[in-house]
Amino acid sequence: MPNISLPDGYPGIRSLFMYSPVTALPLNNLVQTLLHDPATSTLTPGERELIATYTSGLNECVYCANTHGAIARYQLGDQPELVEQVRQDPERANISDKLKSLLKIAAKVQKDGRSVNSDDVAHAKSQGATEREIHDTVLIAAAFCMFNRYVDGLGTWAPADPSVYDAIGKQRASEGYMTKPFQVLNES
Amino acid sequence: MPNISLPDGYPGIRSLFMYSPVTALPLNNLVQTLLHDPATSTLTPGERELIATYTSGLNECVYCANTHGAIARYQLGDQPELVEQVRQDPERANISDKLKSLLKIAAKVQKDGRSVNSDDVAHAKSQGATEREIHDTVLIAAAFCMFNRYVDGLGTWAPADPSVYDAIGKQRASEGYMTKPFQVLNES
Repeated sequence: MPNISLPDGYPGIRSLFMYSPVTALPLNNLVQTLLHDPATSTLTPGERELIATYTSGLNECVYCANTHGAIARYQLGDQPELVEQVRQDPERANISDKLKSLLKIAAKVQKDGRSVNSDDVAHAKSQGATEREIHDTVLIAAAFCMFNRYVDGLGTWAPADPSVYDAIGKQRASEGYMTKPFQVLNES
Repeated sequence: MPNISLPDGYPGIRSLFMYSPVTALPLNNLVQTLLHDPATSTLTPGERELIATYTSGLNECVYCANTHGAIARYQLGDQPELVEQVRQDPERANISDKLKSLLKIAAKVQKDGRSVNSDDVAHAKSQGATEREIHDTVLIAAAFCMFNRYVDGLGTWAPADPSVYDAIGKQRASEGYMTKPFQVLNES
């Protein structure tokens, strides 16, 4: 049950974008820049979606973790188990040591920005991360500490049906974040 | 000491905006919409800056709390003690009961979005808050959970000199967030 009167049929942040178009525009511009635009980061869209998924999982935001997990699956291609591996334990997931070191930084940002220290940064660099990639990781993890709180603070609807997230994942992975919201009318 | 190589002479998020113009643009658009534009909220810019200041204080982000506290002082006019009162204890500050109820929601968002419940929302409504104002409060508090983590996760410089924040406050209160960054060359 949402905390304010949101339009029926739209899950999670989509209902908030319908409710408040004036704030939806800068929020969508931000997530498009952080996660989707190929030119804005040397991390791949799939890697960036994994950082968003992992952070959302740490915040226990069901809608965001499932949505970005589904987008990551489409971005990463034929590795259907990888997202679940990362969510459960990045250290044992089949990802690069660089990405493991960046996810450690993301986990610290999720708790408290001040907890990131020079050892974390030195370790990420020793695994091949650039300063720009460390910057992007901190900002993506920080941004999902916002999106997760926005989605859960207003009590939005997180569908139970996995096929809903799969459909959103397919759409966003191909179209990005600036197209029309994904509407779901058969569950509400 | 920043965690990555940031340009000298720019404090806090301003150094990150210089480092990464591609992400600075959507972030500045967002904060301009959330805090400054008169048409986007029925909360005054001063009330919105107080929510940002209070949330940043809870996250112990020195740069953001001092900066938005200074902006709030300029937005609120001749009430120099009010920002400090709100930071220390909103319940005893000389603000409306509506704003007190919204700051309670902001404090919950700062901890965990899921902690906001129907009682918090009903209480805010009983004090005169609209659903739109509850929405705006949740989003502002959530956004500062991002900005605070971005600023502190990358170890940016928080000047010790109060006059620096006063100068930023004066500039942002009158010009908003889309103008050139405030440069400080005499401390670094």
